[in-house]
Amino acid sequence: MAAARRMVVVGGDAAGMSAASQARRLKGPDELEIIAFERGDFTSYSACGIPYWIGGSVDSRDDLIARTPEAHRERGIDLRMRTEVTRIDVDGGRVLARGLSGDGGEEWTGFDELVVATGAAPLRPPLPGIDAPGVHAVQTLEDGEALLGTLGGVESGSGGERRRAVVVGAGYIGVEMAEALTLRGYEVTVLDQAEQPMTTLDPDMGALVRDAMCGMGMEVVTGAEVTAVETDGKGRARAVTAGERTYPADVVVLGLGVAPETSLAREAGLPVGESGGLLTDLAMRVRGHTDIWAGGDCVEVLDLVSGRTRHVALGTHANKHGQVIGANIGGGYATFPGVVGTAVSKVCDLEIARTGVLESQAREAGLQFVTVTADATGRAGYFPGAESMRVKMLAERGTGRLLGTQIVGRTGAGKRVDVAAVALTAGLTVEQMIYLDLGYAPPFSPVWDPVLVAARKAAAAVRQERRE
Amino acid sequence: MAAARRMVVVGGDAAGMSAASQARRLKGPDELEIIAFERGDFTSYSACGIPYWIGGSVDSRDDLIARTPEAHRERGIDLRMRTEVTRIDVDGGRVLARGLSGDGGEEWTGFDELVVATGAAPLRPPLPGIDAPGVHAVQTLEDGEALLGTLGGVESGSGGERRRAVVVGAGYIGVEMAEALTLRGYEVTVLDQAEQPMTTLDPDMGALVRDAMCGMGMEVVTGAEVTAVETDGKGRARAVTAGERTYPADVVVLGLGVAPETSLAREAGLPVGESGGLLTDLAMRVRGHTDIWAGGDCVEVLDLVSGRTRHVALGTHANKHGQVIGANIGGGYATFPGVVGTAVSKVCDLEIARTGVLESQAREAGLQFVTVTADATGRAGYFPGAESMRVKMLAERGTGRLLGTQIVGRTGAGKRVDVAAVALTAGLTVEQMIYLDLGYAPPFSPVWDPVLVAARKAAAAVRQERRE
Repeated sequence: MAAARRMVVVGGDAAGMSAASQARRLKGPDELEIIAFERGDFTSYSACGIPYWIGGSVDSRDDLIARTPEAHRERGIDLRMRTEVTRIDVDGGRVLARGLSGDGGEEWTGFDELVVATGAAPLRPPLPGIDAPGVHAVQTLEDGEALLGTLGGVESGSGGERRRAVVVGAGYIGVEMAEALTLRGYEVTVLDQAEQPMTTLDPDMGALVRDAMCGMGMEVVTGAEVTAVETDGKGRARAVTAGERTYPADVVVLGLGVAPETSLAREAGLPVGESGGLLTDLAMRVRGHTDIWAGGDCVEVLDLVSGRTRHVALGTHANKHGQVIGANIGGGYATFPGVVGTAVSKVCDLEIARTGVLESQAREAGLQFVTVTADATGRAGYFPGAESMRVKMLAERGTGRLLGTQIVGRTGAGKRVDVAAVALTAGLTVEQMIYLDLGYAPPFSPVWDPVLVAARKAAAAVRQERRE
Repeated sequence: MAAARRMVVVGGDAAGMSAASQARRLKGPDELEIIAFERGDFTSYSACGIPYWIGGSVDSRDDLIARTPEAHRERGIDLRMRTEVTRIDVDGGRVLARGLSGDGGEEWTGFDELVVATGAAPLRPPLPGIDAPGVHAVQTLEDGEALLGTLGGVESGSGGERRRAVVVGAGYIGVEMAEALTLRGYEVTVLDQAEQPMTTLDPDMGALVRDAMCGMGMEVVTGAEVTAVETDGKGRARAVTAGERTYPADVVVLGLGVAPETSLAREAGLPVGESGGLLTDLAMRVRGHTDIWAGGDCVEVLDLVSGRTRHVALGTHANKHGQVIGANIGGGYATFPGVVGTAVSKVCDLEIARTGVLESQAREAGLQFVTVTADATGRAGYFPGAESMRVKMLAERGTGRLLGTQIVGRTGAGKRVDVAAVALTAGLTVEQMIYLDLGYAPPFSPVWDPVLVAARKAAAAVRQERRE
């Protein structure tokens, strides 16, 4: 019995398969046929978990897979693995797909609803040697396996000397990979062309990350523009050149961020924003289309603080997008309201978090603001393990509305950013935040939670600025 | 040179001394004289830290003192230690104080602004034997020293048998003291007359606490109404009787909660609420008075969810009240908007948190609601140390507004309640909460944070209820 309608999904990771699963929950196979195409070997896996797999805290690749192809098929999803969609025919309501195994034949598949979930690809600047063996990105499970292969070769082959890793880029992936390689015993050098590591933070907060990383024995070189990867006689990477200096490397990891993978969608004429990410409405429909949806790392999302759309590649958003798309295709109603720019990461025991806008982003958005920083402990000062964190807060001039919060500190620092994330979503002022009723007990917080200490200072700065 | 005005503070702990310090920050000694009376030996200490001092994680009593009498005096506060205020003459604008050391003479002191910060006292039901040596409350540093004295005597005197402690009351103090005594090697029995421990949670969540405490080797006896403390030949506590059973005890700790200490204020005719706590306006002025203020454990606060005032004894509120009072007396403007009922605690590695209303409190407030519970891990499931927590959520029928959240789980569970606390303050619906942009990375959270998993279930329950 043919189903009344057909949903076609391009890309079998978080957004695509969440959409498929959610739609299936709402509509049975007689009402909705669901076909999903995935060009790789894996579905629904955690790319964000790869650094922890490489570093050894996660045992195996399979731990990172939330749901296997078989599990999806058991739920009535017609999943076509190792099959790449090569064309979207918008007017014809069909996609052309090619099997990557077997004879490589191509076939058209019609759709009533199309979900574009093609993800993102790591940035790989066109430098000499960048494609040499031993240079690795860490975006897919295949990337992870290749990197582990290189590390295995290096580790079995090397003599008594300490092995060296160069990480290019000091963003989230860069610092997480620096941790992973340190845990594996590598001498790690991180190169970044910016003034400080973690350009998702203001430079003054990034400097704290640099200090902590150096304290962990890593070398952090900023203002370093990588110009080439040098190779040995066998064509394998053996050093990275940046400016005047050359950094020897047994392995090179690229952590330069990712860009939306939208060539297929752009060829089909679907609209993209400045970053190249697809533009959607709040229900995650591609703008200007009624039956084409997009979500996950291939879209731009609305930043509720700056009022602009931007590209934010995060598994948590991808899952939510999928949920929204699946609900809508399944006959329900859901919208994704946007993001406030929250991110959290760690490098060894240093926790790094942000939400809202940085100073530079605030200026770009036309916002005027005051900034404060506050140092406070995450537990009562007398409680064992109480460690200091720094909280930076931006508040709008005049209104005192919270605009952004950055936190760098040790255990318990990172997730405190959630308080600011909810406050941003609700449009609270820093004055309103002072008296937030946050959980207090000595093992969890001082009587003034660090976020409230910062809010108090920010509110004073707003009042001061009004008087001037 | 006499100051233009005089501020008198009754009670030298968190609320009183925060008020004094904040007022001093805003007004110099020539503008404002500040006299503070404290009947005990300590100022500005953390009563909440006492269980951790008893348990040995905090080394010494002095670690719990945020600011000594000397430090306050250096900041220009005329602090009179071991001096008890015995009368407030509201019409005369003066208080009568009596030195507890020396000749015990009494003296009147006039005030332009009076701050009542007399705190709370532990509940001590009038049972036979309750005042015997070896029965201890844990509210003041003096209480803590007395308890440590008893424990020292027991520990040096006892033979090979394991020492036994009975804790009466299974609320915050009770479970924290159960942990402390377990850490000291005692065999611990906790008695409570309620159906489950932690009546600040719904019974189904309290049951999780009971299971965990039993798993830690504690005995938890509920439905146990204590009728007497039995004493030995020397008049020392040796057992606790509840119903038909008698529980041998080398030491007895009372954790029955506290009541506002307002006899002085009531004798002066100041208005109190149902709990006996003073009633104030939003600026923390005692209702009906322009020059009398009150804050900390001796007041009732507005519960923003139930719309009622209630007594919530917590150091974090006391500090904020003091801050507000000091700002207002110092010529500024501040208000304490109220609480949403957040509390967090732990017993060994079990974290317990709540915010908003319980089912019973919601009913009492006239609210109709749906409830859901969700189990989820605090980190990505594959990440080392990922442990499950249970989140219970109440949402208003019809509107879907969040009404309350309770969390019981291991590491990382407790402070997650802050997300719900901010959402409650902002009046968010559970539907709005689903897409909150919370910090995500595998060491910090799964892609769906446990609070969002609960919000998703709650939103579905609200929609379902609307259809019925």
